Amino acid sequence: MLSEHGHEIPPRSGTAFELRKGQTLRVIDVRGEQVADLLAFSRSDIHEVISSGRTLDYASRIYLTTGDLLYSNRSTVMLEITADEVGRHDFLLTPCSKDTFRIIYGDTDPHRGCFGNLAAALEPYGVTEDMIPIAFNCFMNVPVDGETGELRVDPPRSKAGESVSFLAHQDLIIGLTACSALQSNNGSFKPIAYEISS
Amino acid sequence: MLSEHGHEIPPRSGTAFELRKGQTLRVIDVRGEQVADLLAFSRSDIHEVISSGRTLDYASRIYLTTGDLLYSNRSTVMLEITADEVGRHDFLLTPCSKDTFRIIYGDTDPHRGCFGNLAAALEPYGVTEDMIPIAFNCFMNVPVDGETGELRVDPPRSKAGESVSFLAHQDLIIGLTACSALQSNNGSFKPIAYEISS
Repeated sequence: MLSEHGHEIPPRSGTAFELRKGQTLRVIDVRGEQVADLLAFSRSDIHEVISSGRTLDYASRIYLTTGDLLYSNRSTVMLEITADEVGRHDFLLTPCSKDTFRIIYGDTDPHRGCFGNLAAALEPYGVTEDMIPIAFNCFMNVPVDGETGELRVDPPRSKAGESVSFLAHQDLIIGLTACSALQSNNGSFKPIAYEISS
Repeated sequence: MLSEHGHEIPPRSGTAFELRKGQTLRVIDVRGEQVADLLAFSRSDIHEVISSGRTLDYASRIYLTTGDLLYSNRSTVMLEITADEVGRHDFLLTPCSKDTFRIIYGDTDPHRGCFGNLAAALEPYGVTEDMIPIAFNCFMNVPVDGETGELRVDPPRSKAGESVSFLAHQDLIIGLTACSALQSNNGSFKPIAYEISS
């Protein structure tokens, strides 16, 4: 689906596409306060995948922004954040899923969530559910209490039209969603847009 | 290797073993200030694996201790922390590896680290390197600044003989190390001991 910003991901859905080395992916929060879960897999071997644990170790920081590098499980650079109008994203939590909604929200007939949306969108590339790691959750606002370790899921700081941009350091398969969890998006489900430029 | 505490893992090495449902694994810091990376895989399907992202989401906390449940990537409970004399462990960072030592320490001929030790120990069970996720890092002390998101690797709070215990909620394959990173262990490499009780 095309929007004024390029491609649009409808509320509570996801997509997958190729991003070539040297291309830039801009993820746009069209209406504000909407999270987008981002996954990256190596185009040449889908078992090489974006890694929160490696990235946070090398950055020595849990909040990443312009200039930071996102590493794979094999410690190669996949993406570089080259612009960031929001400055607060999460890289601690896995994509919301049926189980998330069952365990945290108590839903009896839960939505498949970002996890199900990513699994469906990435299946044609050979990605299976068990290969889905912690996502880079664009615009997700998860403050951590440094003393107690407690974390909260607060409303995103993103306003309508704000974006974050990623430069690909290698050929990648990208999974991207408009997040399906009420709490992450301040209580309503909105679309996400994205643009790819060379 | 047997020690007065049961099995001993020599400095900078790792091991793997089965832990049956209902058994308790006690991980003991024999000399103090020594980290032990712990991984868990389902005995019935090694593609089900301990998940930091799921666990932290359900706990709403990055620091886990007695009473907390460690979930798999499929949102089933693998382990429960049933006793904890230390109260500070890390669940954010991946096991140290050749790349960790190259990128963070600048080593030109790096040790294979906990990552290499876990991969070697778990290989007979069918686990490959790409299947190794963020470990539950017993005794690893990683304070996070809630404002800036900056993290540090501080000396463990564990004193000689202190331990943390895990009850298995299902049949598991466990990977366990005596961690190989200088910074994580306050500058020296020591053994780790463990006991299994029914």
